[in-house]
Amino acid sequence: MLTNKTIKFVKSLQLKKFRKQEGLFFVEGGKSVEELLEGDFSVKQVFVTKEFLEGKEQFRETCGLEPEVVKEADLLRMGTFKTNNAALAVAEMRSARNTDLPTDEFVLALDGVRDPGNLGTIIRIADWYGISKIVASEDTADFYNPKVLNSSMGSFARVRVDYRDLESLFENTDLPVYGAVLDGNDIHAERFGKGGLVLMGNESNGVRDNLRQYISHPVTIPRFGGAESLNVATATAVICDNIRRA
Amino acid sequence: MLTNKTIKFVKSLQLKKFRKQEGLFFVEGGKSVEELLEGDFSVKQVFVTKEFLEGKEQFRETCGLEPEVVKEADLLRMGTFKTNNAALAVAEMRSARNTDLPTDEFVLALDGVRDPGNLGTIIRIADWYGISKIVASEDTADFYNPKVLNSSMGSFARVRVDYRDLESLFENTDLPVYGAVLDGNDIHAERFGKGGLVLMGNESNGVRDNLRQYISHPVTIPRFGGAESLNVATATAVICDNIRRA
Repeated sequence: MLTNKTIKFVKSLQLKKFRKQEGLFFVEGGKSVEELLEGDFSVKQVFVTKEFLEGKEQFRETCGLEPEVVKEADLLRMGTFKTNNAALAVAEMRSARNTDLPTDEFVLALDGVRDPGNLGTIIRIADWYGISKIVASEDTADFYNPKVLNSSMGSFARVRVDYRDLESLFENTDLPVYGAVLDGNDIHAERFGKGGLVLMGNESNGVRDNLRQYISHPVTIPRFGGAESLNVATATAVICDNIRRA
Repeated sequence: MLTNKTIKFVKSLQLKKFRKQEGLFFVEGGKSVEELLEGDFSVKQVFVTKEFLEGKEQFRETCGLEPEVVKEADLLRMGTFKTNNAALAVAEMRSARNTDLPTDEFVLALDGVRDPGNLGTIIRIADWYGISKIVASEDTADFYNPKVLNSSMGSFARVRVDYRDLESLFENTDLPVYGAVLDGNDIHAERFGKGGLVLMGNESNGVRDNLRQYISHPVTIPRFGGAESLNVATATAVICDNIRRA
């Protein structure tokens, strides 16, 4: 039986403050909940509608716990969606990791990407291009923000974002650092190696001054028309595509 | 002297119905208004704040008409922004054109791109890659929708979108039609010619069946990870980048 207390509790996880306090977050929508269950998260509670369960014989098994059947109205009260006649699940946030960077993979580094929609889209792009690791400055949007999770279109389950002090990270690495800047080398002519960091800057201001000195390979997407800039997610996609074609 | 009637009139242009009826639209924000004035639009009215005019000696000249000084609160009542202490302008919509397609340029063709934010972002991407012409199915988001104009970040002034029946357009052209599909040729291996149509499909369903037969060059962005798809604007950027590197 779903209580008002539970609804209020889940709803509170929309805010970073309460997510941090409880160590929990939620994802909403049928597809996202299924992606969550397939990932390596510790899932605490799953709420589903009767309609969602119909014809999904294996769902209870995948869950590993008994899903609670609720009404769509309850899902809407807990989550951020305007419609959701499917599912919502609460899971444990991953603990922060400060492991070494891989030497034979590409890792995205985000310097102050503030917009949750942009971060979610970047996670989706990373996932498409087989990049499973992102490091982000502390002032980048929060991975567990519902808008980030939702705009990642399920890719949140396959891409890990770790928040780090990028300056000290760059200071202590010998990996090549590719950085998206306005006066770098033409990315169409760039030869990407087997791995390294790919630094993308803030939506308005680009890469901050304190990090520029660490860029060993400044790269630029050549412009053929009049637009002043590309959105950071768009630029990330183009750079990833250039990396993967190499 | 700004009247309530004027405010109400401008505000009504947020809706397609009234834009169509009046043949007018508005753009908001200092940068967008300046881009509008630099474009080939017939501008009817310009509203600015005192602050915006300060230090912009040439603005009145660029305007070609006397801007009306108003308060920020008035700009907010007319437009869609939450803050705008700069400018808003009303201009004539371009008349529809059914001219021949250029043979030595790339033209984007959008089949049912419904989200205004996506259309605006695609316009910005087209502008970056020097593509000044887009043809779109009638059910694509409206070019003059404030969300489209705003998310184009000023590129609306340099890129033209014409709404056409794409089926009859494709039926009557000998140009190559590149189409973004899931089972096409690897775009990294594709040789793009000097021009042609680049067909991008709807956010959820891709290119509709009735148009698939016209695709002479099906192309696919290779996937390296787990994401099911890329956003249509992201895919457009990657395809444009591949075209331009040729």
